[in-house]
Amino acid sequence: MCELLGMSANVPTDIRFSFAGLARRGGETGPHADGWGISFYEGRGQRSFHEPEPSARSELAKLLRNAAIKSCTVIAHVRKANRGRVSLENTHPFTRELWGRPWTFAHNGQLKGVKRLPLGAFAPIGTTDSEHAFCWMLGRLQGRFRRLPAPATLDRAVAALCAELHGLGVFNMLMSDSRTLYAHCGKRLCYLTRQAPFGTATLIDEDWRVDFAQETTEHDVVSVVATKALTRDEAWIDLERGDLLVLRGGIARRLKPAPAR
Amino acid sequence: MCELLGMSANVPTDIRFSFAGLARRGGETGPHADGWGISFYEGRGQRSFHEPEPSARSELAKLLRNAAIKSCTVIAHVRKANRGRVSLENTHPFTRELWGRPWTFAHNGQLKGVKRLPLGAFAPIGTTDSEHAFCWMLGRLQGRFRRLPAPATLDRAVAALCAELHGLGVFNMLMSDSRTLYAHCGKRLCYLTRQAPFGTATLIDEDWRVDFAQETTEHDVVSVVATKALTRDEAWIDLERGDLLVLRGGIARRLKPAPAR
Repeated sequence: MCELLGMSANVPTDIRFSFAGLARRGGETGPHADGWGISFYEGRGQRSFHEPEPSARSELAKLLRNAAIKSCTVIAHVRKANRGRVSLENTHPFTRELWGRPWTFAHNGQLKGVKRLPLGAFAPIGTTDSEHAFCWMLGRLQGRFRRLPAPATLDRAVAALCAELHGLGVFNMLMSDSRTLYAHCGKRLCYLTRQAPFGTATLIDEDWRVDFAQETTEHDVVSVVATKALTRDEAWIDLERGDLLVLRGGIARRLKPAPAR
Repeated sequence: MCELLGMSANVPTDIRFSFAGLARRGGETGPHADGWGISFYEGRGQRSFHEPEPSARSELAKLLRNAAIKSCTVIAHVRKANRGRVSLENTHPFTRELWGRPWTFAHNGQLKGVKRLPLGAFAPIGTTDSEHAFCWMLGRLQGRFRRLPAPATLDRAVAALCAELHGLGVFNMLMSDSRTLYAHCGKRLCYLTRQAPFGTATLIDEDWRVDFAQETTEHDVVSVVATKALTRDEAWIDLERGDLLVLRGGIARRLKPAPAR
């Protein structure tokens, strides 16, 4: 298994507090020592940082904890390998361009027979089931829409693809096209939305407490999605199996399972 | 204008010495202060580091100077923006997946009317001429070959595409599919190959001298390509306009201009 962290916000927001909690689980407070990665969207651009080593002992992860990269959408992952050896090409999040947008994807869980799903123009670079599932999804979207569709249309299409993969096993997943963050709960995923009036929060994995009222304006809306709650004093909401959470500008909307098609 | 740096080696090799010279030109010994990026191939995987800020004052660039990422193929770029604003999405190298391989591309120069070249399935995320040229090249390759062709076939196809772009202006370019590093000289590009017996070298932009005999084995072959010589005491070979240098496992082979097709 692995752990996921996602963020969606209506203003560029510093993820360091949440990432610090996740990074400790990469080989220190958690067993996810087979690599880590984080993708930040900044304007139309996207950049990712990857290492096939434990995040808890990484110089690069330490640098990211000190440098405040502000972003409206973030996807992060710490890996405990089950399928696919420990290597850079098997380290999430994966990235592809579709319709002139940078898509990123991270997954935890196992998907039985996923490699039998036929691919379109996107092909895996590594050997994980996860990257195959991502390439399959993008190939299907590309085959169906010539251009980026309206948000609600894309949401329904993504929900239908998630429902198909959900039928193959455990599909906990974060994916973004820069405009929307999609979070699918296969087995375990929770989230919360922070907005005014802001309170304080304390990490579970590290002695770090933040007073969000000091860090934000009253208009800020920030949602965080994670495999397991990252803070001890906030009300995390568990998603149900098969739920797809659609996040835009910090606002989370829950879609119930869509019928497979 | 911008500056380029590429490396091809037959064993995973530390690029820090050469990158230190290039990074200083990003806002200190050179005017290329509008962003920088570097892509490393490691096994089948690839990772890039990008910042839309001067490399000479970057904490991330400093970290990369301290961390020895060993790679057989590297592409780096420092940017002085002419077309396309200063932003993350306009920061080279650009990356796309084709045939299950991570392709990277960096360019300096201007290409008149390049945005009128019709694109296939690859679309730019940013607004530079360079990324448009890259997407056009990959679209043409994808249209012509269903799978990764034999090296010599791909070399000829890349040479023909470079010749077309060379006709539009200045096309100094580095591109890799992980197996091969292509270096096209539009106006200015030079290279050297280091192999046994190894000597010493001193950077032009910084007080740093290396004795390669201490750092290598007698079987190592490493070629470095750069816009301008990076060391003061080695014999850099200037490429001619229209030349394509094809580098595999550190060995450089020069292709004369191919006819446009």
